[in-house]
Amino acid sequence: MRALRKSKAAPGFTLERIAVPRVGPSDVLIRVGTVGLCGTDLHIYSWDHWAQRRVKPPLTIGHEFMGHVAAVGSAVHAVEVGDRVSAEGHIACGICRLCRTGQAHICEHVQIIGVDTDGAFADYIRMPEANVWKLDPSIPDSWAAVFDPLGNAVHTVMAADVSVKSVAITGVGSIGLMAIPVARAAGAATVFAIDVNPQKLALAARVGADATFLATQPDLVEDIVARTGGDGVDVLLEMSGSGSAIDSGLAMVRNGGVAALLGIPSDDIEINLAERIIFKGLTVLGINGRRMFETWYQTQSLVTNGRVDLGPIITHELPFEDFDRAFGLMKSGEAAKIVLTLNEANA
Amino acid sequence: MRALRKSKAAPGFTLERIAVPRVGPSDVLIRVGTVGLCGTDLHIYSWDHWAQRRVKPPLTIGHEFMGHVAAVGSAVHAVEVGDRVSAEGHIACGICRLCRTGQAHICEHVQIIGVDTDGAFADYIRMPEANVWKLDPSIPDSWAAVFDPLGNAVHTVMAADVSVKSVAITGVGSIGLMAIPVARAAGAATVFAIDVNPQKLALAARVGADATFLATQPDLVEDIVARTGGDGVDVLLEMSGSGSAIDSGLAMVRNGGVAALLGIPSDDIEINLAERIIFKGLTVLGINGRRMFETWYQTQSLVTNGRVDLGPIITHELPFEDFDRAFGLMKSGEAAKIVLTLNEANA
Amino acid sequence: MRALRKSKAAPGFTLERIAVPRVGPSDVLIRVGTVGLCGTDLHIYSWDHWAQRRVKPPLTIGHEFMGHVAAVGSAVHAVEVGDRVSAEGHIACGICRLCRTGQAHICEHVQIIGVDTDGAFADYIRMPEANVWKLDPSIPDSWAAVFDPLGNAVHTVMAADVSVKSVAITGVGSIGLMAIPVARAAGAATVFAIDVNPQKLALAARVGADATFLATQPDLVEDIVARTGGDGVDVLLEMSGSGSAIDSGLAMVRNGGVAALLGIPSDDIEINLAERIIFKGLTVLGINGRRMFETWYQTQSLVTNGRVDLGPIITHELPFEDFDRAFGLMKSGEAAKIVLTLNEANA
Amino acid sequence: MRALRKSKAAPGFTLERIAVPRVGPSDVLIRVGTVGLCGTDLHIYSWDHWAQRRVKPPLTIGHEFMGHVAAVGSAVHAVEVGDRVSAEGHIACGICRLCRTGQAHICEHVQIIGVDTDGAFADYIRMPEANVWKLDPSIPDSWAAVFDPLGNAVHTVMAADVSVKSVAITGVGSIGLMAIPVARAAGAATVFAIDVNPQKLALAARVGADATFLATQPDLVEDIVARTGGDGVDVLLEMSGSGSAIDSGLAMVRNGGVAALLGIPSDDIEINLAERIIFKGLTVLGINGRRMFETWYQTQSLVTNGRVDLGPIITHELPFEDFDRAFGLMKSGEAAKIVLTLNEANA
Repeated sequence: MRALRKSKAAPGFTLERIAVPRVGPSDVLIRVGTVGLCGTDLHIYSWDHWAQRRVKPPLTIGHEFMGHVAAVGSAVHAVEVGDRVSAEGHIACGICRLCRTGQAHICEHVQIIGVDTDGAFADYIRMPEANVWKLDPSIPDSWAAVFDPLGNAVHTVMAADVSVKSVAITGVGSIGLMAIPVARAAGAATVFAIDVNPQKLALAARVGADATFLATQPDLVEDIVARTGGDGVDVLLEMSGSGSAIDSGLAMVRNGGVAALLGIPSDDIEINLAERIIFKGLTVLGINGRRMFETWYQTQSLVTNGRVDLGPIITHELPFEDFDRAFGLMKSGEAAKIVLTLNEANA
Repeated sequence: MRALRKSKAAPGFTLERIAVPRVGPSDVLIRVGTVGLCGTDLHIYSWDHWAQRRVKPPLTIGHEFMGHVAAVGSAVHAVEVGDRVSAEGHIACGICRLCRTGQAHICEHVQIIGVDTDGAFADYIRMPEANVWKLDPSIPDSWAAVFDPLGNAVHTVMAADVSVKSVAITGVGSIGLMAIPVARAAGAATVFAIDVNPQKLALAARVGADATFLATQPDLVEDIVARTGGDGVDVLLEMSGSGSAIDSGLAMVRNGGVAALLGIPSDDIEINLAERIIFKGLTVLGINGRRMFETWYQTQSLVTNGRVDLGPIITHELPFEDFDRAFGLMKSGEAAKIVLTLNEANA
Repeated sequence: MRALRKSKAAPGFTLERIAVPRVGPSDVLIRVGTVGLCGTDLHIYSWDHWAQRRVKPPLTIGHEFMGHVAAVGSAVHAVEVGDRVSAEGHIACGICRLCRTGQAHICEHVQIIGVDTDGAFADYIRMPEANVWKLDPSIPDSWAAVFDPLGNAVHTVMAADVSVKSVAITGVGSIGLMAIPVARAAGAATVFAIDVNPQKLALAARVGADATFLATQPDLVEDIVARTGGDGVDVLLEMSGSGSAIDSGLAMVRNGGVAALLGIPSDDIEINLAERIIFKGLTVLGINGRRMFETWYQTQSLVTNGRVDLGPIITHELPFEDFDRAFGLMKSGEAAKIVLTLNEANA
Repeated sequence: MRALRKSKAAPGFTLERIAVPRVGPSDVLIRVGTVGLCGTDLHIYSWDHWAQRRVKPPLTIGHEFMGHVAAVGSAVHAVEVGDRVSAEGHIACGICRLCRTGQAHICEHVQIIGVDTDGAFADYIRMPEANVWKLDPSIPDSWAAVFDPLGNAVHTVMAADVSVKSVAITGVGSIGLMAIPVARAAGAATVFAIDVNPQKLALAARVGADATFLATQPDLVEDIVARTGGDGVDVLLEMSGSGSAIDSGLAMVRNGGVAALLGIPSDDIEINLAERIIFKGLTVLGINGRRMFETWYQTQSLVTNGRVDLGPIITHELPFEDFDRAFGLMKSGEAAKIVLTLNEANA
């Protein structure tokens, strides 16, 4: 089968032919239909420091996907051949305290597909039955392919509890953009979007932000505080990983508010804990992955009830072969979310 | 009346004679019985950078106290002359959104007695009726005098929710020490105490810590993680304000755990947000003051039900005139909590 | 001044001339502009058993209103003459444990205006400063007059937490109707409305219900369970007070769901606790009044952000003199919410 | 092997010889050591109406047990032969929404061992690997055998959140008795125990109740309300299933308090929802089973940290052969918890 691989410790990917994975008794083999491109894939493509420390070639990359069940192990009973599915890409151990208490998304023994183990940019992928998610037929392939990042947005929004609250989102890359309609659908009273990129802000306004702000605006914090009656926003959704965005983001939250952190800073950051968190009585939430499977049910509900429209956010749909062009579009900042098609449904 | 004052912008305090405060219609005049000494008082005494920025002399200092109602304003109806009382030292504005939604402890317009307005180290103090707390007769004067720091400990413990959980406390100064019996009474399964001072650790063990650790122990984090079955503690109560304690404290919390931050770092700290908070899915709580008046009801319950014993923590009871000696004992680290007596109950 | 009064223990009201109330130091005198009619007023009008037990004539009735501040007591500082205001009609004691811990809405010593003490159907009403709510200028008088029942709806919806959840509302009288746009704005995924009255169901659909159901539909529970994928709804908002609606409402909630009860049954009801609550692991919330003042801030946010439209629900705006006709319209079931105008803003 | 069976639809049990169960790939075969007797077993023994409706003979009964792993299926990896274990007796489907979102304890497709499928009163029992719980070596066999009812008590106490709260327990049968030390260990400020049986109340006092009350005491509610400063208790743990206990229990909870219902009424009950739940703003929690496996971790923590002592509650330890005598002791009310030994550890 075809597979997009990190063959050796160097920049770039190669399209190779490798064997179809074998399935164990509790595994499901999925013929991959459509995949989504993530910033993580670009890190591995570029072979930056994070990638060099974490990834051990050779490895098939990719973790955002949908497809159809092609085979099932002998003990599988929740899905059958032909089912249209996506899957949770964090493979948890299933036996630790966190896994046994509904917190598998922060299992310490997690293996992430496309990072720690063979991923989804291939004709077939093997997944444990427990990770597979059956798709509602009303969901388009391109949307189903990006349930992973959409789930990140949903997890962040739902953890922060935005119902009838004012919300600021720092960083509107593809997940930050998705968080806008998700927050609106989840009941946010107002959504402010902040970024360094004016094009992303234009897209943010298009998908439902009530107001948008350049991160470089000198009186950004004062402006946003003024728009909330002088209190500050109830909720910050931090999706940039930038130290300065985190600092100004925390500054614009009202006393007693909530800051949910999803963006990953590449280095240590300096923070004035006393002024930004302690005296304010803030609640700061570290967010990782997607709750299994509460986030998936919520994501499905938002999409099937028509509350969230990914149309404007999926800016490019390309054939799998154009992966190099796709990574170029990502790097340029021109694209929001790109999906690639490997196999048609009835192929 | 006598008053211990910061008369000018320089180290030290002076004992002066000033006029008894006048009470407005909603005010209560309290004849001060016993007061507690706090690290904040020592900062003002020493006239460090924080004090120079915050405090405007002349000012009567002190915020931990108990006494008896000596006079009431015309509109006061909740207390009467002769009532034995303590008081919440954070004077909130009463009309902002936070005050009107049960979050007065983080009112942005707060005035703290002994810091922003005349305090309790005097024969009389004037307090708004809304801040006064009637004392149960079973509570000794010396305990009642320190309901403010005890309330900090109670607020931190209750915000973190320690019931049937493992708890680490970083920093066992007087509030950290108080947090030990409070956490035990609130249902903590195990309490680990960490400090740089072996004498404080000995006192920590005496008031109920299950195990104590020098902060300098090289394998501190690994040791504590091992004692929780390899997961890490459920809850961190950070009471030191030290950057390295915060870092190792966060490292020893299990994925999905809670860190309640009460200690105030004097400067910005460097933090690896990704490893310490985000990937772990931590909840970090900034803690300030005491919830008005939920914390006071909880504090009263803990003391009157005999669940918390402050006896070993109040290491010194001295007459008011010995205040210089008292600050010397504080500076030396010899004392845990010191109280001073101004006026006997029936004086 | 004019006042609509229950003069004696018998059906009906009389329009009388009485003295304008005097204000104490902490009181506010409000010139009443517009008032809303509530089912409670109709109970007192009809002089039913509940009214006979609770109300002690003579009494000015009415508790839903808005107006302008006409005078303030000497100690009042949060509002001034001329301010456009509404007010919380539950006058709490302010000194009990519930009042001091942010739960004044369930103070045991509460006095309700128009029920226990003189109400708002008069040219002037006296309110404690603490109860007064300044109105945003963008809110129409007729909407401001019904912040009390709208607040009941908001309190119920927010207590139940409907964000990205399926919701059933049993009983769409005026509060149930208001709960529909409130639930949608607060993030409900789907809203099902159930009532015995087809006209109310038509209005329910108009204000945002995704589907409506006659309470008499034989397979009602099965139908609703089927529409939620076989699980049942996440949340029940019970606003009818009917024993059979409560029973079928609880039956249609999924295991682990939430039922918020606002409707007041007139008698004891029979309930199968084992099947309806215990085995299902339900959370049942008793809802009373409005949280002071969290609910008011939420209500204001929903209205000023344009998320809730009361237009279709306020079916009748009449002059104060037409009160008899108004109660007739209420009795007939023809009206949803009726407001009466006493004094124009600049009168 | 030996098995205590309900062979036919009539009162009594018979000790029979049947085949040892076969294990599938995900199953574990456990050699049963010690078992606990539950009221449910007595219902089946007596063949009352509930049992006649629910139980389909022939069936091996019993659901409280501990033992040692005797064999494992080919796909089992969490336990191995020789491990000392107990097990969750609710076998959930594993694939429904509740099971996939951490709420397997209320799975609608649950099968209970000893009720719906063959149980533990036999030399061997087959359990799914997912249900098996490895025991800490410090836990005595007789305690390990009753982790099921102890877990009911822990689930109820933890759901209600008793930390620094006043608690009333209505009904101190064996689970109610267990709830006393559990509530104390979880941080309850005070625990009041109420029952019709003076011997049970004496035992309640022995295991930590601060005060005990006969349910027939005429001024019971007033007495308990007076002991909480006139407010009522913060938390009710209802463990009797009696309609009158539920009514008086709800009456003694303070406004805004929590009532956790575990006891199962045998019939519909009459309830004044308005006075008992709605106006009071109560939160009522239906409690079922044990959270998988949060409750098990909490139970283990309470026992291994020495916070809970089951010694006085396990009143009888008898050999398996004495089961008829054991059911007689249960019926008489003489026993609290009875355990029976089938096989010694090294048999």
